[in-house]
Amino acid sequence: MTAVWVRGGMIVTASDVFAGDVWIEDGVIRQVGVVRPSGEAHIIDAPGMYVMPGAIDEHTHMGMPFNGTVSADWDTETIAAAIGGTTTIVDFAIQRRGGTLVEAIETWRNKADGRTAIDYGLHVAITDPRPEVIAEIPEAVKRGVTTVKVFMAYKGEMMVDDTALFQTLLAAREVGALVMIHAENGDAVVLLQDRLYEANKRAPRYHAESRPLEVEAEATRRAIALAKLADAPLFIVHVTGREPMEEIRRARHRGQRVYGETCPQYLLLDESYLVLPGFEGAKYVCSPPLRHASHQEALWTALAEGVLQTIGTDHCSFNFREQKHMGRDDFRKIPNGLNGIENWVQLIYTYGVCQGRISLSRMVDLISTQPAKLMGLYPRKGTLAVGADADLLIYDPSGSTTITAQTQHQNSDYNAYEGFVVQGKPQWVLLRGNVIVQEGKHVGTLQDGRFVPCSPYSAA
Amino acid sequence: MTAVWVRGGMIVTASDVFAGDVWIEDGVIRQVGVVRPSGEAHIIDAPGMYVMPGAIDEHTHMGMPFNGTVSADWDTETIAAAIGGTTTIVDFAIQRRGGTLVEAIETWRNKADGRTAIDYGLHVAITDPRPEVIAEIPEAVKRGVTTVKVFMAYKGEMMVDDTALFQTLLAAREVGALVMIHAENGDAVVLLQDRLYEANKRAPRYHAESRPLEVEAEATRRAIALAKLADAPLFIVHVTGREPMEEIRRARHRGQRVYGETCPQYLLLDESYLVLPGFEGAKYVCSPPLRHASHQEALWTALAEGVLQTIGTDHCSFNFREQKHMGRDDFRKIPNGLNGIENWVQLIYTYGVCQGRISLSRMVDLISTQPAKLMGLYPRKGTLAVGADADLLIYDPSGSTTITAQTQHQNSDYNAYEGFVVQGKPQWVLLRGNVIVQEGKHVGTLQDGRFVPCSPYSAA
Amino acid sequence: MTAVWVRGGMIVTASDVFAGDVWIEDGVIRQVGVVRPSGEAHIIDAPGMYVMPGAIDEHTHMGMPFNGTVSADWDTETIAAAIGGTTTIVDFAIQRRGGTLVEAIETWRNKADGRTAIDYGLHVAITDPRPEVIAEIPEAVKRGVTTVKVFMAYKGEMMVDDTALFQTLLAAREVGALVMIHAENGDAVVLLQDRLYEANKRAPRYHAESRPLEVEAEATRRAIALAKLADAPLFIVHVTGREPMEEIRRARHRGQRVYGETCPQYLLLDESYLVLPGFEGAKYVCSPPLRHASHQEALWTALAEGVLQTIGTDHCSFNFREQKHMGRDDFRKIPNGLNGIENWVQLIYTYGVCQGRISLSRMVDLISTQPAKLMGLYPRKGTLAVGADADLLIYDPSGSTTITAQTQHQNSDYNAYEGFVVQGKPQWVLLRGNVIVQEGKHVGTLQDGRFVPCSPYSAA
Amino acid sequence: MTAVWVRGGMIVTASDVFAGDVWIEDGVIRQVGVVRPSGEAHIIDAPGMYVMPGAIDEHTHMGMPFNGTVSADWDTETIAAAIGGTTTIVDFAIQRRGGTLVEAIETWRNKADGRTAIDYGLHVAITDPRPEVIAEIPEAVKRGVTTVKVFMAYKGEMMVDDTALFQTLLAAREVGALVMIHAENGDAVVLLQDRLYEANKRAPRYHAESRPLEVEAEATRRAIALAKLADAPLFIVHVTGREPMEEIRRARHRGQRVYGETCPQYLLLDESYLVLPGFEGAKYVCSPPLRHASHQEALWTALAEGVLQTIGTDHCSFNFREQKHMGRDDFRKIPNGLNGIENWVQLIYTYGVCQGRISLSRMVDLISTQPAKLMGLYPRKGTLAVGADADLLIYDPSGSTTITAQTQHQNSDYNAYEGFVVQGKPQWVLLRGNVIVQEGKHVGTLQDGRFVPCSPYSAA
Ligand SMILES: [Zn+2]
Ligand SMILES: [Zn+2]
Ligand SMILES: [Zn+2]
Ligand SMILES: [Zn+2]
Ligand SMILES: [Zn+2]
Ligand SMILES: [Zn+2]
Ligand SMILES: [Zn+2]
Ligand SMILES: [Zn+2]
Repeated sequence: MTAVWVRGGMIVTASDVFAGDVWIEDGVIRQVGVVRPSGEAHIIDAPGMYVMPGAIDEHTHMGMPFNGTVSADWDTETIAAAIGGTTTIVDFAIQRRGGTLVEAIETWRNKADGRTAIDYGLHVAITDPRPEVIAEIPEAVKRGVTTVKVFMAYKGEMMVDDTALFQTLLAAREVGALVMIHAENGDAVVLLQDRLYEANKRAPRYHAESRPLEVEAEATRRAIALAKLADAPLFIVHVTGREPMEEIRRARHRGQRVYGETCPQYLLLDESYLVLPGFEGAKYVCSPPLRHASHQEALWTALAEGVLQTIGTDHCSFNFREQKHMGRDDFRKIPNGLNGIENWVQLIYTYGVCQGRISLSRMVDLISTQPAKLMGLYPRKGTLAVGADADLLIYDPSGSTTITAQTQHQNSDYNAYEGFVVQGKPQWVLLRGNVIVQEGKHVGTLQDGRFVPCSPYSAA
Repeated sequence: MTAVWVRGGMIVTASDVFAGDVWIEDGVIRQVGVVRPSGEAHIIDAPGMYVMPGAIDEHTHMGMPFNGTVSADWDTETIAAAIGGTTTIVDFAIQRRGGTLVEAIETWRNKADGRTAIDYGLHVAITDPRPEVIAEIPEAVKRGVTTVKVFMAYKGEMMVDDTALFQTLLAAREVGALVMIHAENGDAVVLLQDRLYEANKRAPRYHAESRPLEVEAEATRRAIALAKLADAPLFIVHVTGREPMEEIRRARHRGQRVYGETCPQYLLLDESYLVLPGFEGAKYVCSPPLRHASHQEALWTALAEGVLQTIGTDHCSFNFREQKHMGRDDFRKIPNGLNGIENWVQLIYTYGVCQGRISLSRMVDLISTQPAKLMGLYPRKGTLAVGADADLLIYDPSGSTTITAQTQHQNSDYNAYEGFVVQGKPQWVLLRGNVIVQEGKHVGTLQDGRFVPCSPYSAA
Repeated sequence: MTAVWVRGGMIVTASDVFAGDVWIEDGVIRQVGVVRPSGEAHIIDAPGMYVMPGAIDEHTHMGMPFNGTVSADWDTETIAAAIGGTTTIVDFAIQRRGGTLVEAIETWRNKADGRTAIDYGLHVAITDPRPEVIAEIPEAVKRGVTTVKVFMAYKGEMMVDDTALFQTLLAAREVGALVMIHAENGDAVVLLQDRLYEANKRAPRYHAESRPLEVEAEATRRAIALAKLADAPLFIVHVTGREPMEEIRRARHRGQRVYGETCPQYLLLDESYLVLPGFEGAKYVCSPPLRHASHQEALWTALAEGVLQTIGTDHCSFNFREQKHMGRDDFRKIPNGLNGIENWVQLIYTYGVCQGRISLSRMVDLISTQPAKLMGLYPRKGTLAVGADADLLIYDPSGSTTITAQTQHQNSDYNAYEGFVVQGKPQWVLLRGNVIVQEGKHVGTLQDGRFVPCSPYSAA
Repeated sequence: MTAVWVRGGMIVTASDVFAGDVWIEDGVIRQVGVVRPSGEAHIIDAPGMYVMPGAIDEHTHMGMPFNGTVSADWDTETIAAAIGGTTTIVDFAIQRRGGTLVEAIETWRNKADGRTAIDYGLHVAITDPRPEVIAEIPEAVKRGVTTVKVFMAYKGEMMVDDTALFQTLLAAREVGALVMIHAENGDAVVLLQDRLYEANKRAPRYHAESRPLEVEAEATRRAIALAKLADAPLFIVHVTGREPMEEIRRARHRGQRVYGETCPQYLLLDESYLVLPGFEGAKYVCSPPLRHASHQEALWTALAEGVLQTIGTDHCSFNFREQKHMGRDDFRKIPNGLNGIENWVQLIYTYGVCQGRISLSRMVDLISTQPAKLMGLYPRKGTLAVGADADLLIYDPSGSTTITAQTQHQNSDYNAYEGFVVQGKPQWVLLRGNVIVQEGKHVGTLQDGRFVPCSPYSAA
């Protein structure tokens, strides 16, 4: 494998921005700064561009079964991800009821291997917390799956009770696994859903009414309490608004190891999308739901301040015409989720960095370095440091484009960010030194991506 | 029935302190202030004494089954209550598993009627929340039982899940019933208990370790969230420390109708009692457990500030020699509860009023007026207003005594406040105009007390 | 003086609401409840009406010099007050630069005596804090002036610095005087005013821009800090919004004796009034200024919760045509203040009680009992207890009226609440047993009112 | 100048820790990672050592006049600093009453040039805020002094009032200067001091009593308010405890650009040192004073969480025998300040990193990268990025030593951290590529250091 020499760009890490080169050999970064070539090299000239570690999306659902259908799959979505600047995802392997964690991990690896354009790691979600299942956590860790997801909602399907959550926290702590929480009170959701349905409130907008912020704030608080009792670290996914965020802040300021993620949709979209004319609102049905726009600025500040540590997409893409229409007469049957992995880096850059809400370094921290650290991928991933995998995103900040489903690579008939104008775009993307995106075009294959085992958690 | 003329005392209400007389006819207050006698009257001279509405203890457990034994019963404990200045209690009728609410109410009325020295109302506790049980709430209200208790702890016995709690809140709201919460996360408690037990940590002190403050704070937050979603008022019993109290404060300052009670034991005792030599700590086992002394001042401030609205005793008296010893080798088997109804008024007066933490009027508010309002006994009970039942506590503030089991009337071989010095004492107590305590001695009978139906809640 | 018998009304005190009579002799309440007449009496039948203690407005400026003009005077404004249900005001005697406190008190007593329809007390405002002036505080207390006002704004006129404020707090504490604070950072205000003026921003709306909420929040925090250091109680007048209110809340919850007042204008009007067409906005120029409407609900909750203890009017009435027009070309010259004393009770009843934000008892507490307690007028004023002055407000809750300057008694060419619809109205008002308002009409004289000495502060 | 090759160390930046080399030419970092030498080089082998950017102490007082004496001077203290791992300080040039800012800057440059072992920048402190002085701020910025200090305490000497502070904020904002605040209410301090002195409370411990935390919290809040009104960024120096820290947190979470520093003495020492026997407490007199130990953990958490951004020493060294004894009979005359620059890096490493309170990267961030960014020294200083000055601290984590005055290089007869055990020590220190400390020994000269102009602030 020839060396690669990225020349003349502006290098951006989680702490620094400086002009310099990157020299890559054997898929690994060997020099950063003023490079002295040690032989032949493929040269990429990057003047005027930002050279960053590839984005790491710690929250995706590729080909995930949901209410009898399946979300868009690895083959299309990982190519879209690559084009968007993402070089690693961490997807959720979901335990089958009656099944085991090992089975879930194997199922997911089988789905992904050979069908992914970028590297991936796995979380495993416990949905059927039999004692022998919780006892599998050490085995999962041995297999490089060091993050365990628990759903406090989706009653009757994936939800587990406080006892199981507590036991999971205890078992995870023993082997350095990190527990990730979908925080909504599932009992309350079902009651609210049924009351709305019975009151003939069945349109998409009632999805949001059935899962108010309080439902999320409560569950967040509860998970934090159980983690404190178990003396275990905790990661709250998809924080949507002020109150749950404040719960995290309070816990952190008491010294507890609690981490939080938010997603582009909670930063940029809001509940008004759910009342679009016709059935259009269904496109924006995800859980937790979109909130009032007034929460957005609070989330940005929380990202800037370090109250939240990462951004993930929760990419879970369904098409509108068939899949979303399953809930035509009953919002409870609309598959939950929306797309975002193709455009999230551009969106965060445009609405975060260009609008002065976060610095360029903080962006890299939020979308690459922190995810890598918290998920156990660091220092192999998530940084431009010497010795790291040469996963590079070379971003050209010039020019602007308008997002539209017509030109997207995500396999869907709509794009959640239709009409958003974004500044700049990923120009080259390297995966372990290989160019997989060249001048904005995917030039790699679905054999490029590999499974990356994660290490056990140690405080980031 | 002759009139009664209480002459020359210092009248204390929740808002005022003034010199004046009280004139009583037919068991009801007819005049307050400068009285013009309208005929013969039994005269009680009260110079130098405080004339207050009798204390109302909204939180008692008389003759309550617990872990195979039964707490001290109506006959002894209501006499002790009367001597201590309490003229009404509201006791918890506990639904039998498989039984109904109406059955619970009847059982409790049968226990009490003819065996109580003072008036009483009832709460009903739902422990087996079958749909038909929740549907009984309107019937309970019709029978004068307008407060519904739900336990979030005591798993496998009285604990109900979030669904049942939510349904209870919805059903209660419809008929103006107020839901009362024992807030501890029962799942977490059982796990912590079992871990301690298995680690050979079986002494009384581990009772407290198995129910840390976080367990209470979490459940408090959860109940508040569900009440908000149900748009129902909520009453949190026995708040023990800063964190759960702060949850109530936050909710109230958002405008939510949440009320909180604390108890003398959380204001005056602390966790150090649980590590007394030998098995002595068992005397102080109650749930939630006693906390670190540093929480006491925060609770007093919360009472003074109106963050908490009432004081109740949670009187649930077991003797040490036999009953508490059931848990000699296993703290989980120690009956939970301690006594307090005989001395609580003196204790609050001494450590609250005399030490400047609350005013005399605020004491009356906390131990009589607010309980009456929140429990639906007002304006019949809880005030010295004209038209109210003539339930009077005439308190002589002179002199001090030391509390000791040797002279108590509570049926127990210990007093939780042994050795506490208190200032003043109840001198006369009138129940609907009848003198039941005269110069500190009980002169009434167990036929004096009556069931008092409560009215549906309306914001106090 | 004949007795007065108020019959058949609904008596409302700060803690109770009950049907009953009031019997008055020699200007003092003798019986409350079922009255047994002891002779002849003037009878007032009050069925369907609320019988409350007369309102006490602890914050008025009658005939106050301001920027070369003088606010509306005792003769008209105290009659308007009486008609509105107010039986006592506490007005601010302002020290003259170079003058003394005793001089200020005498000046104000001379202004008021013989020209007031209702009773009055006085605060004294220190504006020139020479050592000998601060040394006068004990003498002021001896003369029945136990509350000392300090302005942190109005630089160059009434503002004093932190040293003087601290010394005042220390001196006041020694004799039980209570320090009242106008909390705005005067240095910042002047700078902001001048910058706006120089930028040609001279219309009324810029008055508000020159005194943003932050200016008030800061000064509130500072006064609280100094009071804590001096270990002195503190009373913050005219709290206008969330941030300063939160400062009070935090201090109280730490256990500090800090009290707060808000005014009808901050509960019911908002900054949009300042941008009314033409020069109309000048009518609403007061300091601190009106805020965004979103603060109103927070203030109501603070009143309901006890974070704030009283409502006062800050009545300081100027006419629009001449006085307000002094600032036609310069908002800094608009006399600060607006009227309110005629309608405040109706407004609080309508928008507070009828809209469910506060209970009837809490209203009485806020507009009568608490002001009396905090200002040292209690128990002579502020309650319907036996022995108290028979200052009664008999309020007929039936019917509604629309407030308009055309029918008002306040001496102004506008009414700040023009067009507000209010529910019910004061029907009779008694001052020490004398009927001064009969069926809504003033029937008293300007000789009715007397100076009422206030007692030194003791925690309410 | 020959190249320097730092080989085989563990490189630590604010975001990364990785094994690698550093290659330096012409005093500038040219390569980081796997270095390919481009010629001869002086080689430093660093296996097992941390290679970090040199520490930047943004808060020193070298040779500062105070109460008629002068703190330890540049010649000794900068050598001690170098030995301790510090390569740049930013010292405070203090305006003379009646003097100008330019004069202050020149005076300080004259003091430092030729007498400093390490690089330095300057802040300028405004103590006499005449209009023409505030108008000098742009000139100061031109001269590379972009941070302006304002004292809210030291009344009669350096203190300025709110008007001057506000004007300074406005003027600074115009040219991108950052205002730094010594936050204590000087009026309150003087009053408290005098009261203590008059009460014959004159020992060192009363220094702390005269400057309670509330004095600092209040001033912090006030400065934040004025900065908000001026829309200017703000830097609060030497935050000592929870309450002032919370003020910063609240402001930041509202989105305000407020930054905070704490110092080793507030993290590691506490008020108990002030009551050491004899006059020993005087050694620990600094302003703001040491606080109760319970504040320490809150400060560490604030550093970890990003509520506070930097650590500075506030090194201001006086000897005990003569200088501190000036206040033998009057705590007000004890020179304020203590030493720390020689040991601070070791102390933060030992008590921060080794005890798990902050990560190694966060330490580098707090003591080097963030100070560089906030003071306008970045990217020239504060990082190991290519192109940066080769200011390196090579820290050997092995071994431990006990701090003692007997072996220190600071010019004082005591060391504030006497007896503290520290882990590891600076082994080599490079200043712009020159070895100034070799195996723990100073090998440079007082001509090594240079003035470094700072750039105007831009949000870090
Ligand atoms: Zn989820
Ligand atoms: Zn998800
Ligand atoms: Zn309970
Ligand atoms: Zn109980
Ligand atoms: Zn004012
Ligand atoms: Zn005023
Ligand atoms: Zn300082
Ligand atoms: Zn300093």
